[in-house]
Amino acid sequence: MTHVLDEAIAGSYDDAGLYQAQTHEAYANMVGPFGGSTAATVLHALTAHPEQTGEPLALTLNFAAPIAYGAWQIRPQLIRTNRTNQHWTFTVEQDGAVVGSGSAVFGITRDTWSDVEATPPTVPPAAEVELTPFPEFIGWARSYEKRIITGTWDSPSEDSTTTMWIRDAPARPLDFPALAGLSDTFAPRVFVRHANYMPTGTITMTTYFHATSAELAAHGDDYVLATARGARFGNGHFDQYGQLWGGPDHALLLATTHQLCYFKDPAPAQ
Amino acid sequence: MTHVLDEAIAGSYDDAGLYQAQTHEAYANMVGPFGGSTAATVLHALTAHPEQTGEPLALTLNFAAPIAYGAWQIRPQLIRTNRTNQHWTFTVEQDGAVVGSGSAVFGITRDTWSDVEATPPTVPPAAEVELTPFPEFIGWARSYEKRIITGTWDSPSEDSTTTMWIRDAPARPLDFPALAGLSDTFAPRVFVRHANYMPTGTITMTTYFHATSAELAAHGDDYVLATARGARFGNGHFDQYGQLWGGPDHALLLATTHQLCYFKDPAPAQ
Repeated sequence: MTHVLDEAIAGSYDDAGLYQAQTHEAYANMVGPFGGSTAATVLHALTAHPEQTGEPLALTLNFAAPIAYGAWQIRPQLIRTNRTNQHWTFTVEQDGAVVGSGSAVFGITRDTWSDVEATPPTVPPAAEVELTPFPEFIGWARSYEKRIITGTWDSPSEDSTTTMWIRDAPARPLDFPALAGLSDTFAPRVFVRHANYMPTGTITMTTYFHATSAELAAHGDDYVLATARGARFGNGHFDQYGQLWGGPDHALLLATTHQLCYFKDPAPAQ
Repeated sequence: MTHVLDEAIAGSYDDAGLYQAQTHEAYANMVGPFGGSTAATVLHALTAHPEQTGEPLALTLNFAAPIAYGAWQIRPQLIRTNRTNQHWTFTVEQDGAVVGSGSAVFGITRDTWSDVEATPPTVPPAAEVELTPFPEFIGWARSYEKRIITGTWDSPSEDSTTTMWIRDAPARPLDFPALAGLSDTFAPRVFVRHANYMPTGTITMTTYFHATSAELAAHGDDYVLATARGARFGNGHFDQYGQLWGGPDHALLLATTHQLCYFKDPAPAQ
């Protein structure tokens, strides 16, 4: 049986060089598809391109307009292939209009000095953390198993940090498209600060993939330890910096992820 | 007298819609121009475009190939103008070849709930920190006044954090192009870890501009408090997450900045 994520990212290149994709109801968000499934599809489309070489290093995705449910397209452009890396840009299109843009870098994995300098958050094992329920209208949340340790939105908080165990639901071996999707699974940081829903959305997102494909294969379908925090909120925007940890003892930094979001004022000012 | 940064970012759009720029010897790096001056020029070029609206929110710049000293071009493409934001992509070109790419988002500043959640590092005043000398061959370093508090490369360190007072030299009122340039002024994190120079360079850089133009104007030509750290090193790459602080008491987060770099192994393995 094909996993829902694989259904969601599935598509093929047409004769004009556009990757023809379809939004998937398993990744429906409040308005249009979940951005993480869009990111996963873009990364899958690029790696499916016959000219693509190397492993994913970086993906930037700019959400310029809402994506409607249904058919959508990715128009990739190979910018340059170097000896050790390859640069792409792309637009996300729908009904002939550009609704997104971005860029990706792939690279050759070379054996070098290495160190994971950051430290993962200290957390209880996933088995000891309750499954976090999500409201029915956040459809994509049912495609992930989230066990939030800190940073739900039960009560307002001065600290926007969310730390959670997360994996695809049903469980699925981790790969780069899945990791791109996981990068966008943090609820908007303003929800955590205000314990309140409010209009918000990602404007631009950049993920750096530190893991190699071998490390992701070794991780398998285990939980990813994910943590994210905002640094500044104001003037209708806020940022988020996140880390995704996996591998043995969840001590391997698989990806770092950054995004800038818009938001509209919550009703009760804090 | 025109400031060297203003000389470096100066240019104009030709009839084909390309912004014609020139590298500037005041921002020469070991190989080609300093990436921060490239970023500053791109941001200046986009804001100089007649169709541009809003203040800078995000800039992603991908370095696909070395830029040679001399004439270079920016080819902007307006992706979409929304009610509250505007999306651009661009390529960086030289002698008809694409040597870089990227995207930028601009937005309308709206008055909303606000909070600076991150905290600036605790540091001595700039006047009490010695000017950090740089070797002659890092030409662009003479265009900045750097007072490094922690994280030079005198001796190897397990912590790649660099925290410093920095401003343009000569002092210049802060604006968005200057802030884009400052985002790239951290020495490569591998230098700090190994206390050693080695081949390294930025592959992709993303800066989120949290400050408004009014906040930058109020900051004036005062020092910016800049701090950056790498999270994972390995397989020929490492990341860097930085924060640029300014405003009253340097407690206002002006920008957060992210980059992914390549590196080649240092001679003495640590």
